[in-house]
Amino acid sequence: MQPVIREMTGPDLALGFLESLTALAEVNLSFEAAAEVFRARLRAGVRTYVACVGDHVVGTASLVLEQKFIHKGGKVGHIEDVAVHPDCRHLRVGSALVEHATQQARKLGCYKVILSCFERLVPFYEGLGYRRHDLGMRIDLG
Amino acid sequence: MQPVIREMTGPDLALGFLESLTALAEVNLSFEAAAEVFRARLRAGVRTYVACVGDHVVGTASLVLEQKFIHKGGKVGHIEDVAVHPDCRHLRVGSALVEHATQQARKLGCYKVILSCFERLVPFYEGLGYRRHDLGMRIDLG
Repeated sequence: MQPVIREMTGPDLALGFLESLTALAEVNLSFEAAAEVFRARLRAGVRTYVACVGDHVVGTASLVLEQKFIHKGGKVGHIEDVAVHPDCRHLRVGSALVEHATQQARKLGCYKVILSCFERLVPFYEGLGYRRHDLGMRIDLG
Repeated sequence: MQPVIREMTGPDLALGFLESLTALAEVNLSFEAAAEVFRARLRAGVRTYVACVGDHVVGTASLVLEQKFIHKGGKVGHIEDVAVHPDCRHLRVGSALVEHATQQARKLGCYKVILSCFERLVPFYEGLGYRRHDLGMRIDLG
């Protein structure tokens, strides 16, 4: 059964969304706190997509839009937090999510989409049309 | 003369801000269009910092905040569009801008700051406490 990809809604929080994200990193939020995060993200214009099988969420990806001054005030899409429930990896859920987020970025007028990933995932993203561009740097704040 | 780093305001658009960004990529916006971009970025919560010598802008860096579900709903800062006017590279404007944006991210509650850069700039960012973490991928949309 192929997953359906759509924008996340509040009820998804209790229907597998947080468990899917746990595949990526610890979440450790009550449903109430997660609902507050969801509202803050909506206010900031972050798009959160979910992959559903029936009414259960089996994966997610997010799209953060950033309007630049450069490139004639163009918009860049940042794909973040692509996560798939370990039981559902065979359904190509991750690629469906990234393709959907990329298509949405195009519809929303982005001139490019960028993302950061570990070396082992480069072939996955190359298969979806992405190419190596630069390096991701980070600093942890105390 | 050391530059002063502060949040950008509207008048900076005509005081060297757009010229500084041109060091990074073409801008090609009228002042009116740039002012509209600036307002849209403020609405989205993007912080734009400028480095000033006297009342002239000689560099800029931006900070995009993203609230996550993972890491207990923590916030990530994305540093974007660090640009310094070619005449001012000797003033260490770039490092002052990145340090300021990083400190602001800390004050705003971010648990990490990330950015993408080309290989040649890795030593610059390492000198500011950043470390290599992953790879930056991109796709260009038509």
